[in-house]
Amino acid sequence: MCGIVGYIGNQQAAPILLDGLGKLEYRGYDSAGIAVYDGNEINMVKSQGRLKVLNELTHDGETLKGTLGIGHTRWATHGIPSDANAHPHFNKDKSIVVVHNGIIENYLKLKKKLLAHGYEFMSETDTEVIAHLLDYYYKGNPLQAITKIMHRMEGSYALGIIFKDHPNELYAVRKDSPLIVGKTDGGNIIASDVPAVLRYTRDVYFIENEEIVKMTETSMEFYNVDEEIIEKDSTHIEWDVNAAEKGGYEHFMLKEMYEQPKAITDTFSPRLKDGKIVIEELGMSDEDILAIKKIMIVACGSAYHTGMTSKYVFEGLARIPVEVDLASEFRYRDPIIEEGTLLIVVSQSGETADTLAALREAKAKGARVLGIVNVVGSSIAREADNVMYTWAGPEIAVATTKAYSAQLIALYLLAMKFAHVRGKLDDENLASMIEELKEIPTQVEMLLNNKNKIQKFANRYLAARDIFFIGRGVDYAISLEGSLKLKEISYIHSEAYAAGELKHGTISLIEEGTLVAAVLTQEDLYKKMISNMVEVKTRGAFVMAVTNVDNTEVERAADYVVYIPKTNKYFTNSLAIIPLQLFGYYVSVGKGCDVDKPRNLAKSVTVE
Amino acid sequence: MCGIVGYIGNQQAAPILLDGLGKLEYRGYDSAGIAVYDGNEINMVKSQGRLKVLNELTHDGETLKGTLGIGHTRWATHGIPSDANAHPHFNKDKSIVVVHNGIIENYLKLKKKLLAHGYEFMSETDTEVIAHLLDYYYKGNPLQAITKIMHRMEGSYALGIIFKDHPNELYAVRKDSPLIVGKTDGGNIIASDVPAVLRYTRDVYFIENEEIVKMTETSMEFYNVDEEIIEKDSTHIEWDVNAAEKGGYEHFMLKEMYEQPKAITDTFSPRLKDGKIVIEELGMSDEDILAIKKIMIVACGSAYHTGMTSKYVFEGLARIPVEVDLASEFRYRDPIIEEGTLLIVVSQSGETADTLAALREAKAKGARVLGIVNVVGSSIAREADNVMYTWAGPEIAVATTKAYSAQLIALYLLAMKFAHVRGKLDDENLASMIEELKEIPTQVEMLLNNKNKIQKFANRYLAARDIFFIGRGVDYAISLEGSLKLKEISYIHSEAYAAGELKHGTISLIEEGTLVAAVLTQEDLYKKMISNMVEVKTRGAFVMAVTNVDNTEVERAADYVVYIPKTNKYFTNSLAIIPLQLFGYYVSVGKGCDVDKPRNLAKSVTVE
Repeated sequence: MCGIVGYIGNQQAAPILLDGLGKLEYRGYDSAGIAVYDGNEINMVKSQGRLKVLNELTHDGETLKGTLGIGHTRWATHGIPSDANAHPHFNKDKSIVVVHNGIIENYLKLKKKLLAHGYEFMSETDTEVIAHLLDYYYKGNPLQAITKIMHRMEGSYALGIIFKDHPNELYAVRKDSPLIVGKTDGGNIIASDVPAVLRYTRDVYFIENEEIVKMTETSMEFYNVDEEIIEKDSTHIEWDVNAAEKGGYEHFMLKEMYEQPKAITDTFSPRLKDGKIVIEELGMSDEDILAIKKIMIVACGSAYHTGMTSKYVFEGLARIPVEVDLASEFRYRDPIIEEGTLLIVVSQSGETADTLAALREAKAKGARVLGIVNVVGSSIAREADNVMYTWAGPEIAVATTKAYSAQLIALYLLAMKFAHVRGKLDDENLASMIEELKEIPTQVEMLLNNKNKIQKFANRYLAARDIFFIGRGVDYAISLEGSLKLKEISYIHSEAYAAGELKHGTISLIEEGTLVAAVLTQEDLYKKMISNMVEVKTRGAFVMAVTNVDNTEVERAADYVVYIPKTNKYFTNSLAIIPLQLFGYYVSVGKGCDVDKPRNLAKSVTVE
Repeated sequence: MCGIVGYIGNQQAAPILLDGLGKLEYRGYDSAGIAVYDGNEINMVKSQGRLKVLNELTHDGETLKGTLGIGHTRWATHGIPSDANAHPHFNKDKSIVVVHNGIIENYLKLKKKLLAHGYEFMSETDTEVIAHLLDYYYKGNPLQAITKIMHRMEGSYALGIIFKDHPNELYAVRKDSPLIVGKTDGGNIIASDVPAVLRYTRDVYFIENEEIVKMTETSMEFYNVDEEIIEKDSTHIEWDVNAAEKGGYEHFMLKEMYEQPKAITDTFSPRLKDGKIVIEELGMSDEDILAIKKIMIVACGSAYHTGMTSKYVFEGLARIPVEVDLASEFRYRDPIIEEGTLLIVVSQSGETADTLAALREAKAKGARVLGIVNVVGSSIAREADNVMYTWAGPEIAVATTKAYSAQLIALYLLAMKFAHVRGKLDDENLASMIEELKEIPTQVEMLLNNKNKIQKFANRYLAARDIFFIGRGVDYAISLEGSLKLKEISYIHSEAYAAGELKHGTISLIEEGTLVAAVLTQEDLYKKMISNMVEVKTRGAFVMAVTNVDNTEVERAADYVVYIPKTNKYFTNSLAIIPLQLFGYYVSVGKGCDVDKPRNLAKSVTVE
């Protein structure tokens, strides 16, 4: 995820671009750049690191003359964070310049074609392909060149484009990445998100998929992909400028929960090709996959919980034995790593200190290490033998939601791929699992829309001292995550238990009214779970159940039920977590806690 | 989980039933009841609460005439503890009466069918369904009615049944719940466990799954589910009857803590022969031991914690990869069991339902199963391929202490033996480890004698709401056990964490004055542990440390320190647990809790 801005008008462009990028830095902050047209040349400044580096390089924009420009703040996906990979990107003779937010999924194919035509590439990005592709199709008419590349690109994009031949025009276009434009006094502006323009206007146009904008200092025209003019209405924005950085959400955590459908889609859709799972950056051949005798999954916190879930998925689907370990434990216990062991480390930041140390320990012992990380170019991404990215975008709230959900999806894909390669999952079943996978984003959205109901329920537990979560199998894994979500932001002592284990001691903590959240999404374990629920209910507990929509029998053992839509039995964690996230969130909000920055915690744990 | 008894003979039945129930009270104690047939009527007395209520109601059984009867002490599963839900349960015209230990999983379906046939229910229990179901199928032949319901019930059960039409017969049957029967002078007796019959006989028959017993005053016949007579052999029991009395201690738990030096000595000393470890009943040759490629340890509760400890010991000493799993999870996750896997199940009672089921699952999948159990002749002892006994003697307190300590010793011995046979531990090092092992009983005694100091400290935490235990490696395993000990008897919500994991969420629960118990007995982890202690201390925690006598450096990070004597690094759990047991015990005593019989719990968990 990245942020783009653009300006054309009667003011100096660079300071406006830098100001806008500052408002978009939440979308990524590993490098940034701007390009401004001074009438003779398009001048570009870009740099790795936070935006302040760019501000210093350009004296807050003062040194870049010109009133037409585009800018970008990056969160690396293709290519490590570096000066070369930072946007904007030029075509060869610097007559076309582009900023891009999104992922061009077929960029490799396009790049091959361009290389064959003699184009040279300065960066590893998918975006540079766009600049050269525009060059290839540009015959003097910018609109025509833009619609041509739209027909040829697959994936998502919001683009800002300047053509040297057209010094009084700024172009923008989008598909599946956000883009807004606004009219200001003496000029027009484009941006990825509202906060970047609020200082200049409160009337914005939300650009829809496959719509093109052509703007001059004084005019603004919208076109469809057939180059026909279309009419659009503007929207007046009421937001508080400060809140708007959270896109209108009260907290980053809530915003990120709402970004889960997109994070999930972005993580699976580039990997689904012709009914197969293709993970381009993985770099493991079928022979490599067949050679795996054992998987060890090592991680911390919520990422550890995705390991717990995926143990069931890998073992169930691919029949590969899996051992899951806490990174802080693994690295100090002189682990036995046998021939044929694949070690999978999972980390959002790719910088988690214990996980990184575990990776190094395992590599030193001869294991092959696969990293599942969210931040491109992070230490784990660079040091692992193989890497698979989760495309969740930057996560700001300390309590992870969308990165966790994207990790689950990445691990499902991996397990499905391994199972298919190893002959444990046939084409037909793979296809049907893929169909079920594709439904998850919509199902998650539906569950998120239940939020008022969950908030009402959560408000009853603001004074709770102890809350328990129980589940069996994958539902035990989700109980661990639900419990962690609650305790880290609400400071209520919650604990998760394998449901069958509660009666070996902890059931003595159950008092009249104690809330027990029971997760039961596995049909073959319904009865066992209901027995455990009855055990705690009998002792006075108030039982909340999260279960599949068809399991109405649960109502005899539960006082409050949240139903989740039907999905594949291995995917239920992706749905069951939503009400639990909402519950933790609203308890924290109701108690007046600092949701996004809970006491004592930090986002990326880069210490041991 | 419950306890059942039954008697038919020439003595008054009620006093014998009450005496037997007294010995089974460890299996549950939220309500109790007996039914005795006086030749005309089956008279029933039952009551919520402890057994003493029933004793008072019946003048120790004197008021109930008759020489045929059944009795029950309950640990609620379906329906709250109440008079109505207490067993025994009648059919409508009180011509059939039943006591039941177990859970009928399809009871709702059966209940629906019976309701449709006009049956009325007085209780919420699954057991009442059995009484009516017997009524429905009974056409004058008890054996036939019993086999009919066996075919229709799903779940687990041990039943005692009386039919009014058959005044000289007592019936019993079991599936997945324990049942023994014994011949006495002038009569026959049935019970859930051996202690209930020891006063009358030392020769008992262990009833197997789906076996039926028909007994009269003078005869005893065993049938299979096809109503065919089968032959069975009796087993002679050697236990000391007095071992099950308090012997001057305030609580069984304290008595059993003080029996730990003996339990430890009794567990290792018969196995040390000429500087070698010989485990006679084990029945594994050196070839068998060399053939082990992987160990899976499966257990519940505290026994699971001994598995956690011994993972470090087996892996460290014998370099055999070990996977530890909760029995309730293992059995339902379709575990992958590879060639060369040794499955070790650990259980004090040898009847733990989930552990027994895990054993059966593993055997069905071809694993070799070794049982580490305390009760000779128990189901696990009988069904495992190999067995190793812990010689802890009968344990009465619900919170295990001496059985746990004996389990640790058994696992050390096994790991040392495996390491020696596999050439990872030479004679010299084995000899020195054995010397250190022999010192443990004296060291434990020394730590127990510290009890007044710990009591004083414990008294400061009677009002605590939340307590945390942290450790790394084997010290994490002991933290889990220390935390369980505290919470199960004091009802304080305590939780154990791998010390490196706390900062991934739970550290947000630390407030000014929160007690954190840190265990650090592993020299190479002192520094990492001290960092974690400082992390919580910085956030206001009061830090108690349990560490080796030479680690005085800990005092800079701890507010209160308990030192343990120096022992082998693999044996430290056996010492570190003592102050933690004492702490839990004295918090419970100080709060006035029922130490030996904490609310909601039962000693042997023979339900899932």
